[in-house]
Amino acid sequence: MNREQDWLAQIAAGLGQVRVRQPIIHHITNYISINDCANATLAIGGSPIMANDQDEVAEVAAQSAALVLNLGTPNTRMLDSLEAAGKQANALGIPVVFDPVGVGFTRVRTRAVAQLLLSVRMTAVRGNLAEISRMAGLDVTSRGIDALAAQNNAADTVKRAAQKLGCIVAATGVSDYISDGRTLIRIDNGDPLMARVTGTGCMTTSLVAACCGAMTEKLAAVTAGVAAMGVAGEIARSLLQPGEGTGSFRVRLLDAVSNLSGEEILKRGKLTVETTND
Amino acid sequence: MNREQDWLAQIAAGLGQVRVRQPIIHHITNYISINDCANATLAIGGSPIMANDQDEVAEVAAQSAALVLNLGTPNTRMLDSLEAAGKQANALGIPVVFDPVGVGFTRVRTRAVAQLLLSVRMTAVRGNLAEISRMAGLDVTSRGIDALAAQNNAADTVKRAAQKLGCIVAATGVSDYISDGRTLIRIDNGDPLMARVTGTGCMTTSLVAACCGAMTEKLAAVTAGVAAMGVAGEIARSLLQPGEGTGSFRVRLLDAVSNLSGEEILKRGKLTVETTND
Amino acid sequence: MNREQDWLAQIAAGLGQVRVRQPIIHHITNYISINDCANATLAIGGSPIMANDQDEVAEVAAQSAALVLNLGTPNTRMLDSLEAAGKQANALGIPVVFDPVGVGFTRVRTRAVAQLLLSVRMTAVRGNLAEISRMAGLDVTSRGIDALAAQNNAADTVKRAAQKLGCIVAATGVSDYISDGRTLIRIDNGDPLMARVTGTGCMTTSLVAACCGAMTEKLAAVTAGVAAMGVAGEIARSLLQPGEGTGSFRVRLLDAVSNLSGEEILKRGKLTVETTND
Repeated sequence: MNREQDWLAQIAAGLGQVRVRQPIIHHITNYISINDCANATLAIGGSPIMANDQDEVAEVAAQSAALVLNLGTPNTRMLDSLEAAGKQANALGIPVVFDPVGVGFTRVRTRAVAQLLLSVRMTAVRGNLAEISRMAGLDVTSRGIDALAAQNNAADTVKRAAQKLGCIVAATGVSDYISDGRTLIRIDNGDPLMARVTGTGCMTTSLVAACCGAMTEKLAAVTAGVAAMGVAGEIARSLLQPGEGTGSFRVRLLDAVSNLSGEEILKRGKLTVETTND
Repeated sequence: MNREQDWLAQIAAGLGQVRVRQPIIHHITNYISINDCANATLAIGGSPIMANDQDEVAEVAAQSAALVLNLGTPNTRMLDSLEAAGKQANALGIPVVFDPVGVGFTRVRTRAVAQLLLSVRMTAVRGNLAEISRMAGLDVTSRGIDALAAQNNAADTVKRAAQKLGCIVAATGVSDYISDGRTLIRIDNGDPLMARVTGTGCMTTSLVAACCGAMTEKLAAVTAGVAAMGVAGEIARSLLQPGEGTGSFRVRLLDAVSNLSGEEILKRGKLTVETTND
Repeated sequence: MNREQDWLAQIAAGLGQVRVRQPIIHHITNYISINDCANATLAIGGSPIMANDQDEVAEVAAQSAALVLNLGTPNTRMLDSLEAAGKQANALGIPVVFDPVGVGFTRVRTRAVAQLLLSVRMTAVRGNLAEISRMAGLDVTSRGIDALAAQNNAADTVKRAAQKLGCIVAATGVSDYISDGRTLIRIDNGDPLMARVTGTGCMTTSLVAACCGAMTEKLAAVTAGVAAMGVAGEIARSLLQPGEGTGSFRVRLLDAVSNLSGEEILKRGKLTVETTND
């Protein structure tokens, strides 16, 4: 078994662990994708709790296996909640997955992210390449919330971002790149229709958190969450009937996650591994 | 016609009344299931209004046939709105259906529920068995928001909770139990996939409220709402195609509610009645 | 080619422009339909950004091709955001599309609309006939949020409302009426099931904004958005299988918008034009 197949086997086993352990995943997230993220978490086998009030977030985080902090629709009260929950999770050693939606697009979001990174240690950050680049202070042009970024520098950008931020970084897009600053993994699964459904990025963050809540090895967990969404996207496309469009694709995406097996990962997973000692 | 068939006939007739009267159902509810609850209400024949601002909730409640108070994502402003709307509904004799999502899971929720019960008279409470037990001050262990509760004591717990709370209580789960403190009804409809879709409990509360808004006899109304969701779950399962999963199940659940007929209730309803004079 | 076919051709061309330009559509909207509106915007080819915090709305609006102001679940902070974004859009010449959900139903909403109209110049207003009538200060009875209005006066009401409000007005319902105060267009596309799915009106507003963000001629743009939803409703009905209901209809509605072609508009569009010099 070569290195890539070894990774796929680890991912397949990890997804099985999520379904067995049904980890509680606390989300502090935006109003747009909150329902989709809850259903995605349930689909992969997790148990989602969406609680964002300042007075209860620490208590909820403490009872969870992982915490999602999603910037989506930021405001002052939301930022206080993100910070309170993140600090509690850090204190208890609970993995924190951060989704910096739209960082760089407005001053509010850029400041919020900077402030949050000062008070909360992230286990992993999941965003698109523009968001990752911005967070790590690397230049990028931003168009709306998503950006058409230079893919040829993507692997390098992600590895440097992970080194700079001191955590695992996952940049999802046409290809997905995951790194802990030493190892760089590329996933080539997915489907263009995923960009035409809102919240697929946020849902990927939920899958990443579910895996982090059930798997010990966090780089493998982040990779598992990203791979699960990419493979589900391809299965969803294969299930699409003539005349169907983004409405049906969105439904079949959730179908695919809910039925996702280790076998599908081994069969469909397109994973490439680089490891360096930088 | 025996007693159970008599109840099913009453439920079937009641669902017909909902479709004729199209009762306006005011919801003050959480951000996760708000869209699903609106669609579920429309599907059963009601007319949903989701309004949670303190300055307008009393005015909206006054124009409604029933009021849903759902704790889902509690915060101080939300609690003020729940109370204002509940008091107005009480003053006008409008039925109030309460969904104490996650009571017992955090201090905020437990306190909020206690405070609300002091100021608002509920017509019915709909929750899972752990939530019902907690509300009535009966011991239960809680895992996340849902709990694996001792089913053999469920009927007794629900009847005692109804007596203690002075309203109709519905505990939904693998089996559903409904009681007004004297009569105990058990519904054995439903499907395991309902637990893998977020918000099915909240949607059941919406169906209960729609029935309360159109039916005079409230115990029958609560039973009708619970039975409607259970039967819809079984119909949804029967419509599921190979390769489909929780995404499609969620869609077909709404399909089933929107097409639900009295005949389906009579054919599929699994209802058991106990009456005592305690 | 007669006048109606000319309009349909303009609409078809306009929808093509939306898909090419992928305009960024900033939404400040309600929690119920926010996800549906994001998916509808993506489906027609736009790029939705949902941002409602006072501190960032002006910055987001400035980067957008069009702005949606939706009253849906009003509160004080939301109203400040609506105003700030609207003023910024006005200053930069960015089209603003207003959806006065439930105006007339409560004092809060009626006051909010009046205040907003004093500070923000709207490019277009999209509502049901009761909401449009109320906004323009014309008498109408209101039942819940939707009203059964006198259709025989609808065309006249809409034209007068456009003259009074000084912007394009679209009243959607069984028939849709669009006017700039001089020209009156009626669209007879659509399906009764659209009234049984929550948010179809809000989604229509999103489609209108997407067209306004890509088309120069705004009356044609508003007409294109309304026609797109109506035609999509008929396509969705044609795709419905036996046993399916409002859940599936909602999915196929989005499918239809995502696959909507100029050919479908030319084939299915039922458009009537009146022009007067009043």
